[in-house]
Amino acid sequence: MAKNIYRGDVVFSADAEHLHITEGGYLVVEDGFIIGLFTKLPEEYAGLPVTDYGRGLIIPAFSDLHIHASQYVQRGIGMDKLLFDWLSDYTFPQEARFASMEYAKPVYDAVVKDLIRHGTFHASLFTTIHYDASAYLFQALEGAGLSAYVGKVNMDCNSPEFLCEDTDDSLRETERFLAEHQGGKTVRPILTPRFAPTCSERLIKGLGKLAQRYHCGIQTHLCESLAEVDSTLKLFPGYRADAEIYQKAGLLDYGPSIFAHFIFPSALDLEILHSNRSMTVHCPDATTNITAGIMPVGAFHDQGLPISLGSDVAGGQSVAVYRQVARSVQMSKLKAFYEPECNHAITFPQAFYMATKAGGSCFDRVGSLEKGFRFDALVLDHLEDAGIPLTPAERLERFCYAGDDRNITARYLGGRELAFD
Amino acid sequence: MAKNIYRGDVVFSADAEHLHITEGGYLVVEDGFIIGLFTKLPEEYAGLPVTDYGRGLIIPAFSDLHIHASQYVQRGIGMDKLLFDWLSDYTFPQEARFASMEYAKPVYDAVVKDLIRHGTFHASLFTTIHYDASAYLFQALEGAGLSAYVGKVNMDCNSPEFLCEDTDDSLRETERFLAEHQGGKTVRPILTPRFAPTCSERLIKGLGKLAQRYHCGIQTHLCESLAEVDSTLKLFPGYRADAEIYQKAGLLDYGPSIFAHFIFPSALDLEILHSNRSMTVHCPDATTNITAGIMPVGAFHDQGLPISLGSDVAGGQSVAVYRQVARSVQMSKLKAFYEPECNHAITFPQAFYMATKAGGSCFDRVGSLEKGFRFDALVLDHLEDAGIPLTPAERLERFCYAGDDRNITARYLGGRELAFD
Repeated sequence: MAKNIYRGDVVFSADAEHLHITEGGYLVVEDGFIIGLFTKLPEEYAGLPVTDYGRGLIIPAFSDLHIHASQYVQRGIGMDKLLFDWLSDYTFPQEARFASMEYAKPVYDAVVKDLIRHGTFHASLFTTIHYDASAYLFQALEGAGLSAYVGKVNMDCNSPEFLCEDTDDSLRETERFLAEHQGGKTVRPILTPRFAPTCSERLIKGLGKLAQRYHCGIQTHLCESLAEVDSTLKLFPGYRADAEIYQKAGLLDYGPSIFAHFIFPSALDLEILHSNRSMTVHCPDATTNITAGIMPVGAFHDQGLPISLGSDVAGGQSVAVYRQVARSVQMSKLKAFYEPECNHAITFPQAFYMATKAGGSCFDRVGSLEKGFRFDALVLDHLEDAGIPLTPAERLERFCYAGDDRNITARYLGGRELAFD
Repeated sequence: MAKNIYRGDVVFSADAEHLHITEGGYLVVEDGFIIGLFTKLPEEYAGLPVTDYGRGLIIPAFSDLHIHASQYVQRGIGMDKLLFDWLSDYTFPQEARFASMEYAKPVYDAVVKDLIRHGTFHASLFTTIHYDASAYLFQALEGAGLSAYVGKVNMDCNSPEFLCEDTDDSLRETERFLAEHQGGKTVRPILTPRFAPTCSERLIKGLGKLAQRYHCGIQTHLCESLAEVDSTLKLFPGYRADAEIYQKAGLLDYGPSIFAHFIFPSALDLEILHSNRSMTVHCPDATTNITAGIMPVGAFHDQGLPISLGSDVAGGQSVAVYRQVARSVQMSKLKAFYEPECNHAITFPQAFYMATKAGGSCFDRVGSLEKGFRFDALVLDHLEDAGIPLTPAERLERFCYAGDDRNITARYLGGRELAFD
């Protein structure tokens, strides 16, 4: 079998609290999976060629658990508008254009390329209500070999007329989307009700039946703002919590269940997510931009709630998830400053864990460089200045705070090096 | 006289509230200064060659009113530490190394290059207590033609022993720094007491005498955190406000007076700054990183207080001041979310104004592309995706949120194009 050996400063999350750092480590990869990490190359591998990255950092590729692929071309625009103006001036008209494949194709091609550029090889993506464009994104991700969940969006009420689906059509198109994409190798379909206020109870229940029939996961926005929670509970008077709507419909029975934002959960929301091992997605830039607030990520971490990171393009301005690593530390400090009773600042290793091993846990053996994991990895370089050496941990932190895609000098996906200009 | 004409989408701040936008405008520059902006080239300039940037944006170069040049090599490192650990583990040992010119030269060379890379052509910089290194930075900036204030730092108490100056030595070295740098063409010396807690009253008063003798300005940190304000007023029992310490010493009589952070001012602080037309510097990334809080920038803006932006490297992680434009909008939203009684969110044009015309007002006719201003300008390009056109204002906003130095495709300093790799 094909073995490859890579040498460099290997860094990944040992656990949710600590980095595992091996300076000048040897990673042995066989058929795309890591079979060992060594500080000294064992005898049995002597003679095999070694790709030596010197002081380059070798880290796991990133996972982005919340991104609106259709909003890619509006990132960093109208960010000083109020949320509802931003949605009606930009987001909704923009999403409507995905009825046209001529419009959709170059946008989704650009998304896939930008994910690879920034080292995000695993992602959970919202599209729009449109079947054809959603199917195109699915195939584009599959073609690139990225691990992904893709969801055709459902919305059948409280939405602009031009984006509002008929309930039966929405369910029929969604079932078609599930049925026709069961065979994805690295990409899977996922149920994607936009969020409770834009979905009727009948739609949610219908999606629950599809979840049972196709053993399918769900992604949506949950407890994103106080106004959203309030309006959801008014629209769904039979339910005690936002999460209960999805739970009772049977939408949490098959994994993964991926909930973006989760800033203002009730005790019952927390209980439901804990008992279903749902994944929450912290999107610090986005919830700042839309003035939703800040997830109490330090407190959730202490409770053992699974937390990943999301770019939330275009609530967030960039697909670079590594920047959300930095931002999650920053925002945890502000949360602790303003609400010390409900949060504390997180550490850099905790933040990096969310973007790699935690997020990666929704996919198949990715997000780490431990034995048995797929070699989805990035090589980072040029992170030192003026001849002053930094430790591997310092270089990784600097990359997340102040680096960019130029620092990613090699990309490996399933053990295969990706050519990238 | 030499005239040059540049064509592109010209954007600058019409005033503190609005962008002035001329699509396909012609900027006529004579001997480095703008003599006109036209939508149609007047007859008198017909026949002169036109440098046509097409859909490129032509904007004023940026001003960074608060940057610690000596901390450049620690940016984006140890950002999850508590402030005092960060200072003692990184900042202070790092600053001590500037006793060595061998250490200082490559760092300061890298700073100058990075400022130019990111389009910051006007800056107010802290160095360290060391004369020789400070003089080197002064010359490096002067050699590059950047407009700048450079201050040798003063600190004679409550500081680590290896950075603590003798009061008389500090005053003597500072006077030497002022005396020997009076002849700078584009760079001027500025008095730089680190902040009140690390300066004795005798030192501050001595600096006041130097301000009077050399007609020199001052830069320092003011009202940065509640703890700082509290400790300052305990250390200076004869004073009613942080700003009064500098005012009574005569340090605000000659311009500019540049005060970084200014998050927790008293009414008297505000009154003193207003009456002296002092410039405040908002550093949103830095005050997040050090958990100081958020300047109430919306409220200050309404009061007409002069506000500029600062990278505050290495409290801030990058010299890119355009990113602080975006961050100032973001942080104003969070401030409004948590403290609606004392702030409102600012607009993008207000934020851009701070980084250009407001900050530029501390220098000589820079920060705008109006007639009479120096042609210190950047050309921005490649800000559109997938063939979808954006307005000039949208492209500028995207640059500040999600662009980087690769989007700066040309740089003009005093009318001269800078070669940059």
